[in-house]
Amino acid sequence: MKLCKVIGFATSSIKREGLSPYKLLVLKNIDDEGNPVGEAFLALDTVGAGLSEIVAVTTGAPATNAVGDKNLPIDAAVIGILDQVTINKKEVYTKNKEE
Amino acid sequence: MKLCKVIGFATSSIKREGLSPYKLLVLKNIDDEGNPVGEAFLALDTVGAGLSEIVAVTTGAPATNAVGDKNLPIDAAVIGILDQVTINKKEVYTKNKEE
Amino acid sequence: MKLCKVIGFATSSIKREGLSPYKLLVLKNIDDEGNPVGEAFLALDTVGAGLSEIVAVTTGAPATNAVGDKNLPIDAAVIGILDQVTINKKEVYTKNKEE
Amino acid sequence: MKLCKVIGFATSSIKREGLSPYKLLVLKNIDDEGNPVGEAFLALDTVGAGLSEIVAVTTGAPATNAVGDKNLPIDAAVIGILDQVTINKKEVYTKNKEE
Amino acid sequence: MKLCKVIGFATSSIKREGLSPYKLLVLKNIDDEGNPVGEAFLALDTVGAGLSEIVAVTTGAPATNAVGDKNLPIDAAVIGILDQVTINKKEVYTKNKEE
Repeated sequence: MKLCKVIGFATSSIKREGLSPYKLLVLKNIDDEGNPVGEAFLALDTVGAGLSEIVAVTTGAPATNAVGDKNLPIDAAVIGILDQVTINKKEVYTKNKEE
Repeated sequence: MKLCKVIGFATSSIKREGLSPYKLLVLKNIDDEGNPVGEAFLALDTVGAGLSEIVAVTTGAPATNAVGDKNLPIDAAVIGILDQVTINKKEVYTKNKEE
Repeated sequence: MKLCKVIGFATSSIKREGLSPYKLLVLKNIDDEGNPVGEAFLALDTVGAGLSEIVAVTTGAPATNAVGDKNLPIDAAVIGILDQVTINKKEVYTKNKEE
Repeated sequence: MKLCKVIGFATSSIKREGLSPYKLLVLKNIDDEGNPVGEAFLALDTVGAGLSEIVAVTTGAPATNAVGDKNLPIDAAVIGILDQVTINKKEVYTKNKEE
Repeated sequence: MKLCKVIGFATSSIKREGLSPYKLLVLKNIDDEGNPVGEAFLALDTVGAGLSEIVAVTTGAPATNAVGDKNLPIDAAVIGILDQVTINKKEVYTKNKEE
């Protein structure tokens, strides 16, 4: 899964059916310091993720499993809000500290 | 989903069957200012997207869901025309403003 | 779908069964001027594409749809030979002109 | 499969159901000397991998096969802990030596 | 399919079931001169590929077709040993010559 930061939101009134119940998040991968890097992409929110939270994003066909509908035309869904990330036993992100 | 700008169109007379009803869009990912970056790619239009619009593109096997035919040999489909994109509470794209 | 140029061919006598009827093309993505860029990759030809033609390539599981056999171990197939590509209303490629 | 090093761990209390039994590993691809490179990503542990181990990671839809549940919304799973990696007949990694 | 060179081998004693009958190859993409480039990755051998051979590698879900078991947790398999690769009518690789 991608290790990402929620950096924004997108809205769309003209879209394929079935997408309306979900918020469309704008995300970026993060570097070792937790800073967003690279190009932004979109994912469906299925866990109630908020701005600046660090999340796990499933891409490709398994993303449809996050909404329980294998016929939805999506390829990315946030499947978890991370509480803590440690790299080499060093705490690099803790949710409460950041808020 | 990819966050893209429609930059052009492609036509093809020799192609696999089932593709004829759909327009073939030329797209690029966008950077934080909404400018197209990287290499162009192709996606089927399923929402009536126009030149210069910012859209959501689903890639891989779920793209076939956008046309309701899992047997179509496509790996990218535009699934939504975006109205607005905000990054860190700042409006970076609004459809009416751009037009 | 990838927007590619056919740059060559590959042959293989030791390969998985089911692949023999198809020509193996060598392709590269193209830049905005239509020049091949990046690393070469392979795709099955299902439309009779020739050297130097600009084509649409479907990757991943949907590529198997191009040969009508979801059990074939392939992840890339040429699904269309492009006639024309326009970017921002400017014609960047036209098949007859190039030949 | 990706050739990766386990560099850390992530925890998540708000996540899609079905994910609770699995540890969430933080991984990076490795270079020819076995050093982690590029951006970190997440994968489910299905083999009991420990920090600093070199592992094989399956991505995309087949990752769900590692947990025997094609409905789980995951796109990456560690499927093997590597004992030895040789490149051009030279031993570049051996598990016991590193420990 | 990826156009790759076999650069090594990996062994794993702790791994998901079903993987034991297959050799785990270490591969890299090749550049226009046939030299390995980028980061190494792993693929199952299903054709008896040897060190330094140029091969076609199928990735993603279709890789499971190469072993005839859609439930195996793999995302890459060598599906063919290449005999010859030509780019722009110039022979860039011929198996017998290299050996």
